[in-house]
Amino acid sequence: MTINIRPMVVNDKPALMRILRNTPEFKPFEVVVAGELIDDYLENPASDYFHLIAESGSDLLGYICYGPTPLTDGTWDVYWMAVDHNRQGQGIGGRLLEAAEAKMVDAEARLIIIETSTTPSYEKTQRFYLSHNYEIIATIPDFYAPGDGKLILQKRF
Amino acid sequence: MTINIRPMVVNDKPALMRILRNTPEFKPFEVVVAGELIDDYLENPASDYFHLIAESGSDLLGYICYGPTPLTDGTWDVYWMAVDHNRQGQGIGGRLLEAAEAKMVDAEARLIIIETSTTPSYEKTQRFYLSHNYEIIATIPDFYAPGDGKLILQKRF
Repeated sequence: MTINIRPMVVNDKPALMRILRNTPEFKPFEVVVAGELIDDYLENPASDYFHLIAESGSDLLGYICYGPTPLTDGTWDVYWMAVDHNRQGQGIGGRLLEAAEAKMVDAEARLIIIETSTTPSYEKTQRFYLSHNYEIIATIPDFYAPGDGKLILQKRF
Repeated sequence: MTINIRPMVVNDKPALMRILRNTPEFKPFEVVVAGELIDDYLENPASDYFHLIAESGSDLLGYICYGPTPLTDGTWDVYWMAVDHNRQGQGIGGRLLEAAEAKMVDAEARLIIIETSTTPSYEKTQRFYLSHNYEIIATIPDFYAPGDGKLILQKRF
């Protein structure tokens, strides 16, 4: 399978929303917020929410959303990433993350921050980022909800 | 001095912007962002950025901005607080913080988060929150800029 990474365009949105809705870790209101960031990127030329997609032929496989962290100089955030539920474990997430990292470093990122959940359903996500040389810098128990804490990971350049 | 705490109204804005501009810890772009949150609150009835002001007679002494943390259930943030540079050390910040905490607890806050800077110019701010029973839960070095880390404080209810 040849994976191609490119900036998102308007026509990608329906397939991406299907991927988001079929991602069991995402709550419905999280899918709404992810959709709002996609719209901001597609409609606002000055958007600070950059989106890359992964495709193979005409199949959309996943996407990543990242951008500069407000009020910082050189810190960037990976806000969302999703890979088609049926195409996981094929290196698509890694390709998306590496492409986004290259763009951020080109834009003089010193520090990349990823915030995720401490719940067991996100263990695979945590392992993914640790395997890509992110390290846990903080944990805030019960941040998202009782029993659902925030894990903050970082990678420095 | 009798300190009165009340919700912000449109006529408060010019005096608040003067206080923000005269606060030496705030960088110009931070004053711009604080002003945008004030405008959101004054112009948007559904704003999630609540603002309280402290006054004595007709003197505006300071303000606090707080709101529910997006994507969380029961976590709230204190986003900004400023007290007139000439009226510090008179308990105004404490009155603002206690009033905001009472409002947040009424709204079923479980957890209040405050993010501030690790730089020496914010040592007084750190001591203020520690004295109000906030505790440091995380530090992210170089988050805002090289040498300017983020300190995350929490208080649980």
